[in-house]
Amino acid sequence: MAVGEQNLGELLPVPGLRLATVSAGIKKPGRRDLVLLELAPGSHCVGVFTRNAFCAAPVTVAKASLRAVANRPAYLLVNTGNANAGTGERGLADARRCTGALAEMTGVAPEAVLPFSTGVIGEPLPVQKIIEALPNALQDLRADGWLDAAHGIMTTDTRPKAHSLRFHCDGRDYVMTGIAKGAGMIRPNMATMLSYVATDVAVAPALLQALLSEAAELSFNRITIDGDTSTNDACMLVATGAAGNPLLESTDAPLYHALREALQTLCVELAQGLVRDGEGASKFVTVRVNGGRSEQECLDVAFTIAHSPLVKTALFASDPNWGRLLAAIGRAGLEALDVGRVGVYLNEVLIAENGCRAASYSEEQGVAAMAPEEIVIRIELQRGSATATVWTTDFSYDYVRINAEYRT
Amino acid sequence: MAVGEQNLGELLPVPGLRLATVSAGIKKPGRRDLVLLELAPGSHCVGVFTRNAFCAAPVTVAKASLRAVANRPAYLLVNTGNANAGTGERGLADARRCTGALAEMTGVAPEAVLPFSTGVIGEPLPVQKIIEALPNALQDLRADGWLDAAHGIMTTDTRPKAHSLRFHCDGRDYVMTGIAKGAGMIRPNMATMLSYVATDVAVAPALLQALLSEAAELSFNRITIDGDTSTNDACMLVATGAAGNPLLESTDAPLYHALREALQTLCVELAQGLVRDGEGASKFVTVRVNGGRSEQECLDVAFTIAHSPLVKTALFASDPNWGRLLAAIGRAGLEALDVGRVGVYLNEVLIAENGCRAASYSEEQGVAAMAPEEIVIRIELQRGSATATVWTTDFSYDYVRINAEYRT
Repeated sequence: MAVGEQNLGELLPVPGLRLATVSAGIKKPGRRDLVLLELAPGSHCVGVFTRNAFCAAPVTVAKASLRAVANRPAYLLVNTGNANAGTGERGLADARRCTGALAEMTGVAPEAVLPFSTGVIGEPLPVQKIIEALPNALQDLRADGWLDAAHGIMTTDTRPKAHSLRFHCDGRDYVMTGIAKGAGMIRPNMATMLSYVATDVAVAPALLQALLSEAAELSFNRITIDGDTSTNDACMLVATGAAGNPLLESTDAPLYHALREALQTLCVELAQGLVRDGEGASKFVTVRVNGGRSEQECLDVAFTIAHSPLVKTALFASDPNWGRLLAAIGRAGLEALDVGRVGVYLNEVLIAENGCRAASYSEEQGVAAMAPEEIVIRIELQRGSATATVWTTDFSYDYVRINAEYRT
Repeated sequence: MAVGEQNLGELLPVPGLRLATVSAGIKKPGRRDLVLLELAPGSHCVGVFTRNAFCAAPVTVAKASLRAVANRPAYLLVNTGNANAGTGERGLADARRCTGALAEMTGVAPEAVLPFSTGVIGEPLPVQKIIEALPNALQDLRADGWLDAAHGIMTTDTRPKAHSLRFHCDGRDYVMTGIAKGAGMIRPNMATMLSYVATDVAVAPALLQALLSEAAELSFNRITIDGDTSTNDACMLVATGAAGNPLLESTDAPLYHALREALQTLCVELAQGLVRDGEGASKFVTVRVNGGRSEQECLDVAFTIAHSPLVKTALFASDPNWGRLLAAIGRAGLEALDVGRVGVYLNEVLIAENGCRAASYSEEQGVAAMAPEEIVIRIELQRGSATATVWTTDFSYDYVRINAEYRT
């Protein structure tokens, strides 16, 4: 079950980057659960990672290694079926054994291989299975491996999330392709569960990091499935430089703006794709809050609505239960909120104002507004000019089923 | 469905207080949905109310009237089936029409009648039906009406919540009885959905207020069903003074300590009763956090666990998925948390330490620990001496069903 048609479009190879997707038999025999990304020499890579204090071993290792190689790793190694989280010192050693084995096979420094894991928390990583699958992965590397990789990083996802786009600047053509996964434990805080984006632009690492942090803030950090920030979140951006442009180092350059827009568009597309395939999702919900005193208070209102189990079950039932929206707004912690000024819209139907049901509103309008798979909840606070948008899903029987049965 | 046996025990009349429970036909014909409490002259009454900015009309009116009569109201009028919330100016007028009608019938000041409502949000209060039922209510008043009243204030509750106790001090006997309701939209913030507690002790209003605020903080404010703070929360404490003790005004008196202990015991009993009957509840879960730097950070960890949909669905499945507990602790926002020091216990079984599964732990132990209806999750932070306890439930198919079908 997922919300909306899927149209990945054509997934464009990014010159300078190759991918492989093979089976290591981590959880189920035959499932393709190991993805390898190979970065051509000269590529720059930056990342944003979970802020969960219980971050997984591969997150700790990847962050340290990325610094050690000054943002020039050679390989990103991703496994599903096991998160290598809550595994303590052994987890760190296990992650390093996998990356070390690949480094030895390829003749790069151990820190030039960054590890990523997703899956069940608290089980030891099956290191031997992963190491044994590495030769196959190295043989399978190819430029057009994006769709397979999007499948390979899935866990409870029901479909792959991927997107490509082309952009142009100063007479040169560029390309950007990205994939992402994650359907539960999704309330990213710096990044989503796992996402890999690559472009052939040549970009200096510091600028690349700033671009990724900003794009993640406006995309992955604006979605929530269940409010549970993952232990393994990581979003990586690779700039291979294969396009041959002079190294982009300044925010004044026209290319900076073209790249920034492309990256934000692609990250929003991937983030929305995660929401559409959220665990048990039957609705794709946009929560837009306007007229706040600050962006933070707009986000506070939007996330309080997006996390409310009562709002989410009403969305599942297509019930225009606007009282639950008012109750959520009222507990969002806004200072001196004048509830009499708040306006609430469902798909452009004004349902509440002056602290109560709008005079123009009829239950039939509400039912009609809630019927589609895609719902926009718009809140007008009318106390400032800030605004924020968050995307989320409903709360269904299937969410409970998926998460009650997850380890069985 | 509710967790555990129910044993209300004997519900003791409180001299100086009478109750009536009648039908006003607010939502369903014949359902007893109107409760009236009559306070003998000389009684003192204090309350704690929701902090939701969208508080309901009766909350606004009750707070103002309680001040206007200097904590000496004559009647508390409670209806179910309609929350009179999200009803704007009309809601305020409707609440005052009901209290005004009762004031006229009984010859008291309009402000001596405090209104309370619970039920669906956003529908106009059926004022006429309530007013027409008032004469019956006045005729039905009796000292032993507590159990009927506990039934009368229920909404999605499956069983009444009530408790009585006796206590003694300085050779005198006292009594205390209380009732509460609420099964969803439960994350009290100053009080629970609705609770009424009475004692025959004579207590000065300021001291009575301090006692109630403290007791509510340690009971109703420590439970959560779904994290959704209600618009209608109110907890009222009546001290009729019928026991004849000299007015209690000082925290030095032995009676102060006896009363304080009795009130906290009774409020915890009622609060836990709400959790046991939480919407869709199949587990009663105690989350105890020890070793924090402050009580607030212990509460942050406890509520993050108690609100996590992933933890709650695992509890529903009786799945000892301790990785989700670690993930919840990790996102609770504690500064400089050393995850290597955190210990996690399920019903006294050590399941995680040093950031990973305990060496002594086996999955069989975890399954056995999760099997009972009553679960204690204990977190040892080992970074200070503060502690806090929160009570909650699991997240089941029935929670989704109840809240998806609520208005149909």
